[in-house]
Amino acid sequence: MRAATVRDGEIVVEEHPDPQPGHGEVLIEVRAAALNGADMMQKRGFYPAPPGWPADIPGLDVAGVVRACGPDAARFGPGDRVMGFVGGGGQGELLTVHERLLMPVPDALSWAQAGGFAEVFTTAYDALFTQAELKAGERLLIHGAAGGVGTAAIQLGATTGAEVVASVRNTDHHDAVAELGAHTVVTPDDEDGRFDVILELVGAPNLAANVKALNTLGRIVVIGIGAGAKAELNLGALMGCRGRISASTLRARPFEEKAIAARAVERHVLPLVQRGAITVPIAETYTLDDAPAAYERFAAGGKLGKIVLTMGGE
Amino acid sequence: MRAATVRDGEIVVEEHPDPQPGHGEVLIEVRAAALNGADMMQKRGFYPAPPGWPADIPGLDVAGVVRACGPDAARFGPGDRVMGFVGGGGQGELLTVHERLLMPVPDALSWAQAGGFAEVFTTAYDALFTQAELKAGERLLIHGAAGGVGTAAIQLGATTGAEVVASVRNTDHHDAVAELGAHTVVTPDDEDGRFDVILELVGAPNLAANVKALNTLGRIVVIGIGAGAKAELNLGALMGCRGRISASTLRARPFEEKAIAARAVERHVLPLVQRGAITVPIAETYTLDDAPAAYERFAAGGKLGKIVLTMGGE
Repeated sequence: MRAATVRDGEIVVEEHPDPQPGHGEVLIEVRAAALNGADMMQKRGFYPAPPGWPADIPGLDVAGVVRACGPDAARFGPGDRVMGFVGGGGQGELLTVHERLLMPVPDALSWAQAGGFAEVFTTAYDALFTQAELKAGERLLIHGAAGGVGTAAIQLGATTGAEVVASVRNTDHHDAVAELGAHTVVTPDDEDGRFDVILELVGAPNLAANVKALNTLGRIVVIGIGAGAKAELNLGALMGCRGRISASTLRARPFEEKAIAARAVERHVLPLVQRGAITVPIAETYTLDDAPAAYERFAAGGKLGKIVLTMGGE
Repeated sequence: MRAATVRDGEIVVEEHPDPQPGHGEVLIEVRAAALNGADMMQKRGFYPAPPGWPADIPGLDVAGVVRACGPDAARFGPGDRVMGFVGGGGQGELLTVHERLLMPVPDALSWAQAGGFAEVFTTAYDALFTQAELKAGERLLIHGAAGGVGTAAIQLGATTGAEVVASVRNTDHHDAVAELGAHTVVTPDDEDGRFDVILELVGAPNLAANVKALNTLGRIVVIGIGAGAKAELNLGALMGCRGRISASTLRARPFEEKAIAARAVERHVLPLVQRGAITVPIAETYTLDDAPAAYERFAAGGKLGKIVLTMGGE
C-alpha cells in the first residue's frame, strides 16, 4: 500500500507493506484522513507516534470501508463505513485499528467529513463535557475558536444549550464562526462578562484573564498551548470563584480511555450529526499523491475547516 | 447571653440579646466552640461574617444541646446533642442555626471534640472527596498537615485506603502526625515520588513542585494560601499528567451547598468517628471568660490539635 510518510522532515508518498488485522482489529480501506496539528509536529521530528502505531505514517483521523476483520472482531463487517481517532497511520491506503476505537459513519457525512470528524469532535467533546462538565444554560468561552477543535466545540456548546462566546483573532473568520452557532464572536481580550467554562486552545497568555473571568464554580480546560505554556496563576482568585483548571491531551491516553472517549462521542455526538445539527466544515481536499501540498496548505494557516486527504473508492 | 465579641480588633466577652429560633432553626445552648484561622482574620477586621450570621461574634464551629425548635424544625428535639459548621456566632452561649446545617454528635466525642469537629472535617472531606475524588490505593500528599484541616485530612485519607504523606515544617509534630495515620512524615520539599492527590494548605510556594509531582490524572486542591497566592503555573506540565487544579473555600458557599456538605460528612465521616477510627485532637480548652487568652494561644501557633472554648452545662 501507499502512504504519506515522514522522511527527514518532509512528507513523501511511499510504498509500505499491507497491514494485517490482529485480534479484535479490522482492516480499513482508507477513504479520507484529515491533517491535524500533531501531524505537523510529527513531520518536524517532534511528537513521535505512540507505541503500537505506524511510526512514520502520520494521521490521527481516519475514515474508510472495512475490508476484513481479525479474530474476534465483531462490531463491524466488510463493507461497513467506519471512522476513528487513531494513534497514527491514518494517511495510508490501509490501516488496522482495534474495533473499539472505531465508530460507524453517519449517512449525513461525506467521506471527507468523516475523515475530519473524529480527532476534533472527540477532543472537543472530552474537554467540554467529560472534563469541564458543561451544562445547558452555562456561558462558554472558546479561545482559538476558528480551529478544528474550536469549530467542533462551538457546535457542541450551542447544540447543548450553552451560550457560546467565540474568541477568534482573524476577523475574516468571524462570520463563518457565527454561522456555526457562536452567539457572540470577539477578538481576544474583547470578551465580556463571566464564564462557566473556558476552553483554552491558545495557551498561557490567556490564563490570568481566564481566571478573572470565571464564574463561581467555573472551569478552565487547557488543551492547546501553542502560544506559550507558562503564566502566573493567582490561587486567591481561583479560591474566590471556587474554580478549577484542568489540562489534557487525548493522544497519550491508554487504549481503554480512548475507547471510552469513542463510546461517548458515538452515544452523544453522532445522533446530532445524523440529524444535521452538527457538521464538519471542510476547507480543502487533496489526493494522496498531493499530500505534500496538503501539508504546505495546512502549515500556511488562515483556513477554517479541515484539510483532508481522500483516497481510493468512488 | 454572653459571647466572645470582636471590638476594635480585640476579643472581649460581652452581653448580647438571646437569639430566637426562626423557621427551620433550632436554638442551641452552646457547650463548645473551637477557634479557627478565620476567627483570627475576623478579629483583625478582615473576613467579615457572611450575611445572616452574627457580625461581631466569631466562631465557625459549634456544639451544644438543643434548647428549642423554631417552626417546622423537625430533625432534632430539645436535649439532643448537635454540632455544625456555621457562618459565625459559635462563640456565644446561645446560637440559632438552621437544622439542616447541623449533625448529631456521636457518643464517641466529648463536648470539646464536638466543638472542634465540624469546620476541619467538613473542609477536609469536601476537599479530598467531593473535589479531589480521592480513592483507595491512591497516594495523597498533604502540605501543612499539622493544622486542623491537615490532621483531619490525614485521618480521612488513611482510613479510606490512601497512602498518606504528610508534609510538616515543625519536626516537633512529626510523631503526633504519624500517630494520626500518616504513612510518611516529611519536612517540605523532602517528599518523594508522585501523588494522585495533593491537598495544599500552605499556598503558592508549593505550586510548581506540586504540578511536577502529580501522577497521571492527579488532582491538586488548594484551600489555604497563607504563604502566598501567586505562582507560575506550567500548563505544559499539567497537560503532560492530564492534571487538575481546583481551589475553594467553604465559608462563602450558599446555604444549600453547606447543607449538602454537612450531609456528606454525616453519612461518610460520622460512622468512622463513632467506631473510633477518627478522632479530634484537642490541644487546650478555655472557658468563655478566658476567650482572650484562647485567641492569644491560637495566634502563638505551634499547637497540634484544636483550641476550644467550653461553656455551660456539667
